[in-house]
Amino acid sequence: MSVTAASGFRAAGVAAGVKASGGLDVALVVNDGPLDAAAAVFTSNRAKANPVLWSQQAIAGGTARAVILNAGGANCFTGAFGFQTTHQTAERVAERLGTATQPIGAIDVQVCSTGLIGVGDEAFRAAVLRGVDLTADALAADDAAGLAAAQAIMTTDSKPKQAVVTTDGFTVGGMAKGAGMLAPGLATMLVVLTTDAQADADVLDRALRAATSTTFDRLDSDGCMSTNDTVLLLASGASGSRPDEAALTAAVTAVCDDLAAQLHGDAEGATHDIAIEVRSAASEEEAVVVARSVARSNLFKAAIFGNDPNWGRVLAAIGTTDASFDPYAVDVHFNGVRVCHAGEPDRPREEVDLSPRATHILIELFAGDATATVRTNDLTHDYVHENSAYAS
Amino acid sequence: MSVTAASGFRAAGVAAGVKASGGLDVALVVNDGPLDAAAAVFTSNRAKANPVLWSQQAIAGGTARAVILNAGGANCFTGAFGFQTTHQTAERVAERLGTATQPIGAIDVQVCSTGLIGVGDEAFRAAVLRGVDLTADALAADDAAGLAAAQAIMTTDSKPKQAVVTTDGFTVGGMAKGAGMLAPGLATMLVVLTTDAQADADVLDRALRAATSTTFDRLDSDGCMSTNDTVLLLASGASGSRPDEAALTAAVTAVCDDLAAQLHGDAEGATHDIAIEVRSAASEEEAVVVARSVARSNLFKAAIFGNDPNWGRVLAAIGTTDASFDPYAVDVHFNGVRVCHAGEPDRPREEVDLSPRATHILIELFAGDATATVRTNDLTHDYVHENSAYAS
Repeated sequence: MSVTAASGFRAAGVAAGVKASGGLDVALVVNDGPLDAAAAVFTSNRAKANPVLWSQQAIAGGTARAVILNAGGANCFTGAFGFQTTHQTAERVAERLGTATQPIGAIDVQVCSTGLIGVGDEAFRAAVLRGVDLTADALAADDAAGLAAAQAIMTTDSKPKQAVVTTDGFTVGGMAKGAGMLAPGLATMLVVLTTDAQADADVLDRALRAATSTTFDRLDSDGCMSTNDTVLLLASGASGSRPDEAALTAAVTAVCDDLAAQLHGDAEGATHDIAIEVRSAASEEEAVVVARSVARSNLFKAAIFGNDPNWGRVLAAIGTTDASFDPYAVDVHFNGVRVCHAGEPDRPREEVDLSPRATHILIELFAGDATATVRTNDLTHDYVHENSAYAS
Repeated sequence: MSVTAASGFRAAGVAAGVKASGGLDVALVVNDGPLDAAAAVFTSNRAKANPVLWSQQAIAGGTARAVILNAGGANCFTGAFGFQTTHQTAERVAERLGTATQPIGAIDVQVCSTGLIGVGDEAFRAAVLRGVDLTADALAADDAAGLAAAQAIMTTDSKPKQAVVTTDGFTVGGMAKGAGMLAPGLATMLVVLTTDAQADADVLDRALRAATSTTFDRLDSDGCMSTNDTVLLLASGASGSRPDEAALTAAVTAVCDDLAAQLHGDAEGATHDIAIEVRSAASEEEAVVVARSVARSNLFKAAIFGNDPNWGRVLAAIGTTDASFDPYAVDVHFNGVRVCHAGEPDRPREEVDLSPRATHILIELFAGDATATVRTNDLTHDYVHENSAYAS
């Protein structure tokens, strides 16, 4: 059901003492081949954690044999010592996994960390290295191993997140944690996708970028970008099937969409999962810009928490964009009720039922044929509480 | 102490029934000359309320004789009927103030509204027009009249906001309400400044733009831009003093800075008034961009509410900007304690005292000589409560 669903992969999740709680905190995913093609997308934040700085370089050649991940510390802004920790972690994985006939180098190992920024001292290093040994001993290809890996990367997640799609002779599976910078000091969305399809690195790269651009990139829980975000796609080729690029992209997108929906539904403190759909925009890019402006309005998000169909806040948000539309000609629907028509009040607010968790905002721009949906959550007392109290 | 501090001005504030509460809700400020020079800045939101659409055109000639303001309804997204209401309001003011020897046209009257978007029906129109008559009868040049005007434009403000500077033979006074889009559905910052200095409209315009760019434009309580924001500056010339442009700009800036600080301190639900100072930036513009990125981070703002000196969230926010600096070479101070040095942890968090309301974040970029400060507030339970409950 997860990173072990596709053939050619083993995984493990262990408790190595990185988390103070004693829970599972180190995961390892290994690609046993025959292929070792890989692709990745990383946070666009200029403040990048040490594992991101390492992994970006290590994957430049389009290959990876393993991914080692830890929760309990982001290893970000931890200086040269922190970077050495990442490097040592990759080296230890390579030592443990390599064989005489099939040696592995540190460069073949991707590293991901999540947790509080600034955490990455000697105790952290020792725990993560212990985690390498424990996971290397525990590797297995079954569902339980995939689940343990998915559990080991959780921070404030309330449950592990896994998805799988099997189609046309190949499988794509994946695991995820977090949501944007939903889990604050903790930060970070980490995603590992595995497939047994045969594909070259450049095809994987295009498929992954296409998939993330319409899924994770449109999940905007609180507008905050993490220093550690990483999405990896590894291909073993073990199925023997070589799908065309469109089929592979569709399967990867389906898994990403499933995982994005799970992240959306597990956003810290949220009481509403809001889909902001923009229709009849001049371009898909403008549709995303308009939807995102609403997703980032604290006033709108607080209104949804209060079950208030406050369309004025929607119009005030979209008015800050440069997208093509006439602000006095738009329609706004809340859960199917058109509360604003042509820039004036329409149906009475009492007709809108915002009590369900799933919330649908539809904005018609009447400026073209493009559409896009951005997912966000409401701004709640629990969001404030969890994000003010975590590190204290 | 307010708009009546400068000679040549009268004001009034009355209860006309626009607010359901029965409180003061319509204010009038009249410039009795001899000059009628005026300047204004308006919201850059493309979704502009009817009073903004009117006032932008009316002030194009650089003159204004009066400003009529109401709380209790924003008259935004209220269609042609709403625009007619604004026009009728200006006409009624002109009728009431004009004389045979000194006639006044609607074009000489600026109109400002604040309150819920979508509110602007026939009852609203009738109440505002009643307010014109009541204020025209109550005009006076004393402090009490200025205070009444300042009170009549309050929405969720806890107190009226007034400021005055007298220097070199002339006076600048002013009143303000709100803070950015702090008062949500209510929206809006409205500011009226009056001076008895002699100045031409182009000088007033430059002085006002210079003043607002370093004061109100750097007050960013929640990142939300109103549909009704208006800042007006009227000059009567009654002092007989014609200051040079630098002296006038300094006085206008001082009054704006005082009012901005009052708006900052009265932000809804806030428990901390946060000044984010960026030093050693490559340019003042970049210093503002960097400071604003922190001011708009919900994670940072929630951490301050929790008295948590979470410098990781500061670095994660500034990493999203394009400003010139090395993310791994910056220093971050919380209330005088350097918690991050050269991109690594420095002084222990326990040394930081975030219990005072006044909070100072200092970010050293080491990229140049420019500096700027942006004011914001923390993200609190009360913010969520007030912005989720108001319109319901």
